[in-house]
Amino acid sequence: MKPYVLGIDIGGTNTVFGLVDARGKVIASSSIKTGKHSKFADYLDELYTEATRLIQANDAVDKVHGIGIGAPNANYYTGTIDDGVNLPWPSPIPLAQAVSEKFGIPTAVTNDANAAALGEMTYGAARGLKDFIMITLGTGVGSGIVVNGQVVYGHDGLAGELGHMIVKRNNGRLCGCGRTGCLEAYCSATGVARSAREFLEVRTEPSLLREIPIDQITSKDVYDAAMQGDQIAKDIFDYTGTILGEALADMMVFSSPQAFILFGGLAKSGDLLMKPLVEAMDRSMLSLFRGKPKVIMSELKEADAAVLGASALGWEAKPSIAQAAAIAAAAVPAAE
Amino acid sequence: MKPYVLGIDIGGTNTVFGLVDARGKVIASSSIKTGKHSKFADYLDELYTEATRLIQANDAVDKVHGIGIGAPNANYYTGTIDDGVNLPWPSPIPLAQAVSEKFGIPTAVTNDANAAALGEMTYGAARGLKDFIMITLGTGVGSGIVVNGQVVYGHDGLAGELGHMIVKRNNGRLCGCGRTGCLEAYCSATGVARSAREFLEVRTEPSLLREIPIDQITSKDVYDAAMQGDQIAKDIFDYTGTILGEALADMMVFSSPQAFILFGGLAKSGDLLMKPLVEAMDRSMLSLFRGKPKVIMSELKEADAAVLGASALGWEAKPSIAQAAAIAAAAVPAAE
Repeated sequence: MKPYVLGIDIGGTNTVFGLVDARGKVIASSSIKTGKHSKFADYLDELYTEATRLIQANDAVDKVHGIGIGAPNANYYTGTIDDGVNLPWPSPIPLAQAVSEKFGIPTAVTNDANAAALGEMTYGAARGLKDFIMITLGTGVGSGIVVNGQVVYGHDGLAGELGHMIVKRNNGRLCGCGRTGCLEAYCSATGVARSAREFLEVRTEPSLLREIPIDQITSKDVYDAAMQGDQIAKDIFDYTGTILGEALADMMVFSSPQAFILFGGLAKSGDLLMKPLVEAMDRSMLSLFRGKPKVIMSELKEADAAVLGASALGWEAKPSIAQAAAIAAAAVPAAE
Repeated sequence: MKPYVLGIDIGGTNTVFGLVDARGKVIASSSIKTGKHSKFADYLDELYTEATRLIQANDAVDKVHGIGIGAPNANYYTGTIDDGVNLPWPSPIPLAQAVSEKFGIPTAVTNDANAAALGEMTYGAARGLKDFIMITLGTGVGSGIVVNGQVVYGHDGLAGELGHMIVKRNNGRLCGCGRTGCLEAYCSATGVARSAREFLEVRTEPSLLREIPIDQITSKDVYDAAMQGDQIAKDIFDYTGTILGEALADMMVFSSPQAFILFGGLAKSGDLLMKPLVEAMDRSMLSLFRGKPKVIMSELKEADAAVLGASALGWEAKPSIAQAAAIAAAAVPAAE
């Protein structure tokens, strides 16, 4: 097997890519601006040029086993992005096909949370685990579910949207998805900021958070205030951790994972989040499962995690029939 | 491959078993009383005697590929019943090991809802489906989750307890599991009977159900009244169907199944249940999945379903190392 994979993480702002070895070492990485090109073909040209430069500079030509791509809403089965809400190109975007054709390398795609789960399983905290659930706590809440060593993709490739579990059935917050009461509306960074606004409205005692214009408060501000002992800020973390803990208990009855792995800014809040979370999870757990699942932090460095996760998919990328044809076609000029 | 499997369904009252062929035809079946023997060894003796009689009468000696057993709380991985609440023998019960030793045939066990899912996949409504969720609506609510053609057992063999999803986070009904607000407390036969008692207390208009002593009302009574146009009874089905529909929408974000398959007495309530269920499911569905999953009824005859489900597991029964040794030991006297 060739010794490297190329991991590509496509975000709304930046596309980060890196050359990764089998032990999860990022040999080299770089990035381009995702939104710079209004045409997908031009974006692909720049990605190819820059990634090829990286590959050549690291003596990795013909040594890349596969390309793995993590992107919002990317569909593992079809290789496409069917609803690229934050991307400047019209959907569907035939991502896997286009990239494998351009590079002449087998390519697989999935959404960023599934990529994160694969990254943890291949290089991180989930090594050796066959049943776990990855929860990414960022601007939104993403998830990647692994059952018996396999990512759960569902019949349409879109499974694992646990950020949209309903945690408040009545009078819940409006979520970006148009429904109300989703986990993401409470336990994301934006959810914590919303909680801050609600708590500051409802409560009257002084708080460090009152020094910040209310619509500019971020989850980081809440964290900083809580670390300085601010009671309202600590209560916001209690509230957030409790909701997330109850949700994890509910996920347990589905796939009975060995562990929940948390990733993202909010996951680094330490005991502020973890203490109420674990208490609520244990309290809410069906007795059959009580005390069984671990809640652990991602072991991947945040700067590398997205590229590592995407790269993990590269190891299992196999040429589809269409990809194989494209790779063969791309190989012809090289052979001349 | 040998042409038959033996399916055994162990319930609190009866143990039903049957000889099944590869097309899902129950060649012959019989039953014994589960609770008759206070010792598990005596129970096993009677089961062996009666099942052997059945096998011999149908010319199936040495033609049984495997034995599949469905039993409450049976663990696929360990082959044991760790918490046999309705059974007269002390837990853990080493079910797979004891049966395979006794019969000299590879044996696998799982809980009844997982067995039902396997039955639908092998012989019923889920043939050809790789991603579906089986929901059994009986005295309780059970579930069997199939992802990519495999039953989800989880790390401990106990996954798929969707009857214990929390559907009412606040002020929910007490469930048999000791927690409050579980799906099972609302959408089981007993849940419907509880709804009847609540509705009759809260509402004042006449109802056919008022002719029955309130603590004797069954879900069947509610069905009969609704079929006669009783408004309170119809509203109880609306209430039940709505809660179940919202729960199915929530299950969708987990594994994105192609279909939900409903089984059990309540599932046969037709449009009374299905209409509010599908409306609530569609209304509550994340847009990504809206309109995708089908909700279908089990295709297995209720009388045969438990045996067929258990038998389906017999096709995949492989001797464990301990089982292989036991089978070899059992074969010695036969060879003499």
